[in-house]
Amino acid sequence: RFKPVSLNDVTIDEGFWKDYQDLNHEVTLAHIDKWLERTGWLKNFELVVSGNIAQERKGREFSDSEIYKYLEALSWEYGRTGDPALNERIEAIARTLEAAQDEDGYLNTRFGHPGLEPRYSDFEWGHELYCFGHLIQAAVARLRTFGEDRLTAVARRVADHVCETFGPDGLDVICGHAEIEVALAEFGRATGERKYIEQARLFIDRHGKQSLADIEFSRAYFQDDVPVREADSMRGHAVRAMYLSAGALDVAHESNDHGLAEAVRNQWDRALARRTYVTGGMGSHHQDEAFGEDFELPSDRAYSETCAGIGSIMVAWRLLLADGQAQEADHIERVLFNVLATALADSGDAFFYTNSLHQRVRGHEAHPDEISPRAHASLRAPWFEVSCCPTNISRTIASLGAYVATTSQNALQIHQYPSGILDTRVGESGRAQVRVRSEFPRRGRLRIEVGAESRGVWDLQLRVPGWAADARVTVNGDSWAVTSGYVTLTEASAPGTIIDVDFGSQPRILEPDPRIDAVRGCVAVQVGPQVYCVESVDLPDDLDVDVLTFTRDVRWEDGLLVGDFLVSVPEDSAWPYSADSSGATPRKISIPLRPYNSWGNRGPATMRVWLPVL
Amino acid sequence: RFKPVSLNDVTIDEGFWKDYQDLNHEVTLAHIDKWLERTGWLKNFELVVSGNIAQERKGREFSDSEIYKYLEALSWEYGRTGDPALNERIEAIARTLEAAQDEDGYLNTRFGHPGLEPRYSDFEWGHELYCFGHLIQAAVARLRTFGEDRLTAVARRVADHVCETFGPDGLDVICGHAEIEVALAEFGRATGERKYIEQARLFIDRHGKQSLADIEFSRAYFQDDVPVREADSMRGHAVRAMYLSAGALDVAHESNDHGLAEAVRNQWDRALARRTYVTGGMGSHHQDEAFGEDFELPSDRAYSETCAGIGSIMVAWRLLLADGQAQEADHIERVLFNVLATALADSGDAFFYTNSLHQRVRGHEAHPDEISPRAHASLRAPWFEVSCCPTNISRTIASLGAYVATTSQNALQIHQYPSGILDTRVGESGRAQVRVRSEFPRRGRLRIEVGAESRGVWDLQLRVPGWAADARVTVNGDSWAVTSGYVTLTEASAPGTIIDVDFGSQPRILEPDPRIDAVRGCVAVQVGPQVYCVESVDLPDDLDVDVLTFTRDVRWEDGLLVGDFLVSVPEDSAWPYSADSSGATPRKISIPLRPYNSWGNRGPATMRVWLPVL
Repeated sequence: RFKPVSLNDVTIDEGFWKDYQDLNHEVTLAHIDKWLERTGWLKNFELVVSGNIAQERKGREFSDSEIYKYLEALSWEYGRTGDPALNERIEAIARTLEAAQDEDGYLNTRFGHPGLEPRYSDFEWGHELYCFGHLIQAAVARLRTFGEDRLTAVARRVADHVCETFGPDGLDVICGHAEIEVALAEFGRATGERKYIEQARLFIDRHGKQSLADIEFSRAYFQDDVPVREADSMRGHAVRAMYLSAGALDVAHESNDHGLAEAVRNQWDRALARRTYVTGGMGSHHQDEAFGEDFELPSDRAYSETCAGIGSIMVAWRLLLADGQAQEADHIERVLFNVLATALADSGDAFFYTNSLHQRVRGHEAHPDEISPRAHASLRAPWFEVSCCPTNISRTIASLGAYVATTSQNALQIHQYPSGILDTRVGESGRAQVRVRSEFPRRGRLRIEVGAESRGVWDLQLRVPGWAADARVTVNGDSWAVTSGYVTLTEASAPGTIIDVDFGSQPRILEPDPRIDAVRGCVAVQVGPQVYCVESVDLPDDLDVDVLTFTRDVRWEDGLLVGDFLVSVPEDSAWPYSADSSGATPRKISIPLRPYNSWGNRGPATMRVWLPVL
Repeated sequence: RFKPVSLNDVTIDEGFWKDYQDLNHEVTLAHIDKWLERTGWLKNFELVVSGNIAQERKGREFSDSEIYKYLEALSWEYGRTGDPALNERIEAIARTLEAAQDEDGYLNTRFGHPGLEPRYSDFEWGHELYCFGHLIQAAVARLRTFGEDRLTAVARRVADHVCETFGPDGLDVICGHAEIEVALAEFGRATGERKYIEQARLFIDRHGKQSLADIEFSRAYFQDDVPVREADSMRGHAVRAMYLSAGALDVAHESNDHGLAEAVRNQWDRALARRTYVTGGMGSHHQDEAFGEDFELPSDRAYSETCAGIGSIMVAWRLLLADGQAQEADHIERVLFNVLATALADSGDAFFYTNSLHQRVRGHEAHPDEISPRAHASLRAPWFEVSCCPTNISRTIASLGAYVATTSQNALQIHQYPSGILDTRVGESGRAQVRVRSEFPRRGRLRIEVGAESRGVWDLQLRVPGWAADARVTVNGDSWAVTSGYVTLTEASAPGTIIDVDFGSQPRILEPDPRIDAVRGCVAVQVGPQVYCVESVDLPDDLDVDVLTFTRDVRWEDGLLVGDFLVSVPEDSAWPYSADSSGATPRKISIPLRPYNSWGNRGPATMRVWLPVL
């Protein structure tokens, strides 16, 4: 229904997301590069060439994929900035990969070399096809922002090897971590080669045939319990679920497979209604990094993995293009502001792997030179033994422009509202040149100006977010109320047209579905797209957040969102379950609430998003 | 302060726990024997002898310990019943063990044989000392109920090997799973050999020196983060924490180490106040089977491992003996009725490994011939890949009598109230022969008769449980009110004395500490020692328990505890967080509440202990 615009057609030029893109360019990419060298994960490819890989290999079985996600980030960022240093780095790494690639296209540092286990000896945990997938996605980014080169040639040989090995007459299995599916589908689109899409379809259809072992977490972990088109919910490992769903939607789109698309749509709708945090985060279990049961959404043990958030953007984007429903763009916005922006430190060189909604105890600052052995952290860490999130964040920030706008037959849709310039073709001969000045996320206001270079007659469709209240649109002085969904400004294409939009900036007090047991008796505060929280660094007397009861009174004061709370410091009883309930007399305080994405940048703190109310 | 009585002095002769002991005797022990054969875990010892162990070994690295816990169960049960078949089985297995033991006393089927990793090459996960510990505990049971024999000789050689290898000049390490500490301390007491207690002390003192690796779950998992006497809370893997604490208390007692005892006491008190479920269960995380942070007690993801409950009985019992506080006997009662009794199926041949307080979806009946690959289950399973719980349940039920009574200088204390006969020495020359007729757990009433064989003058001390309300004691017609703690009936020793006790049988509505976020806005119902729950098999129209709001009205009707609830079937919205809250009009129903320990015996069901209230 909607058609993506080229990344080159979108320039984010100031404000919240421009700051993130600058930070990614100036800090995060170099930080990743340093750690890929320091950990030896990049050097693994050289060890394959030198023959020492079995003795000296470093990192987990999927470490290759971090090189590839970094290459993807570099490719998008090169496309965005044209920085020649990025291009040189891509070419240098591509030479390393090329040297390590086997004659038949296989490329992996963990398997298939003397002294290591043979190729394809561990589909549950080996991650070979997963790694291939990320290499292929890097090549897609390279094709979109540069063109054919050494990297894309390496990826093509890998993709061809996959088609030969796992084709209709090949190995009838899947990889324990979905990723190859969406990668092959994207590669097929980028290269115009149908066979890659057909191979992606084969992998999609092989899920749920129980070719993988029944593990402690059950086959749902791999989405190998039930076929994609028969499953009724998102389940199992959340990142795997999202990557698989994105691949399934691509395959469905490319082959007009409405049944497959409908199945994923239903799983997605149920996930949004029953298995998603208010931040847009997905994944309720630490144990298996997985979706929980319906309405099992604990704040303090929220997994809400950064990569699952990013995966959910991939799914939502594909559904948005197919169905044109604003709830998908709402979800993308929610995850960008409340998962992605949360995961990256203000400093750009530390990351949350999991994004808890409730920090019970104050943590420790991570050492900037130490790898975290665990996903969970009370404060952001510089790198992880399983370091999927940093490179995922970087590639997503570099390609943020892709999610801003689309076109259809005779219209331009704007889905996200960073300040910037859109300049894209609309329909056969139209051109939309549009300038957006946005006060997001602090205020839900923006101004859109149709530029002098615009051509033709087209409609402008603006997403009115689900959180909008008393929203109004004003076009050249005419003003009217709008409600959530897409509002169409017919023939808004005249150069000089000025559109003012106000979605409202008042705090909203959110009540959870009564079936979400974990947050019964609590509310959350949201302003615009941002979920807010309380953080103990804002409390007097070294108190922690568990002493607070929220009065529901909240207001703007000097640019700060301030709420009124009752403070009551509970006393321990020997046994915390009693037929008598008594309480200390509370006192009242006013403290600021902060955007959840900003928390944990001011040292160790306790924090909560869901606020108990009287 | 209190002295244990001999197991032979206590006979449980009817009622709730007698039924469990009969079930254990008639079903559970044979069930365990069958599975130890079927899985090959017992045969592993024969494979050591035949030299085929590396090729044919079955089971996880700690499977030896299940044989040993089974031997312990058999030993206690032989002591209880004198059944010669049990004795023969013990002797037969002891011969198998003896044949597999190395010359220097080492005995393990997983390490130290040709083709397997060498001895002591993996202290984090190898479990060698853990397995030794359970063998030694089996020998303690054998010494207490039979005397020296082949089994105790094997265990003594193992214990001596441990002292030689890990003594003051030996390997300065600990086992990743505590157990050897409490076992050696018990063995030292049973044999009168001080050196075993000294070795236990060495292991206790070595905890917290970070000799084990920093793993994903952190060293707290092994209690190797902080020394025992410096730690301020129970933490990490809950079973490990309990076994270690029991060992530390034994060592503290045997060497008058008040500092060590005080440290464990403080950790325990905090665990009861902040880290224990209303059922007495401990352990909030599935991921690492561990304690959570203070007040992190999710119902739906309660781990509450059966073995952690049993371990907590071991700790509470030692604290009770040392300090004489009724809260410890309260805890033992709570765990017996709400963890141990829950874990075992009515049929005696299926088990809960974890004891969730909230079952969100209906599960599947486990196949009676299939090993469960996971700890979590919606219904009880016959056996597990990690099958620590069945044998632990069996050994505890067989030795239940041990927790009923103690004596002090001039008094008999009764802590638990199964119907039965106590016949034990009190002080220098006294004898207490006492008959208890109990209506536990359904009613908190009992009658105690001092028997004709009683001698001397002694006091009777009765535990008045924490849950007692309007409790009264009547002695030979004189009646007075009592409150929780120990009530002393001075010189109650005259034969023919009749004591009637009524602790009350009214349902209590329990409010949780407000810091337990997971159950905010909910109450639990307890009657006597039993926590109650609602189970969907009692609901009309195939409803599930998540439609219920409790009115707090509950009463006895025809022997059933019946509560009034409002039923409101929520409708999904696309996004479950909203500034508008609306609700369907509820209707009222009355349904039975059931003892939590009985749930899951009537087929797949949803269940909850904590009931949302208006």
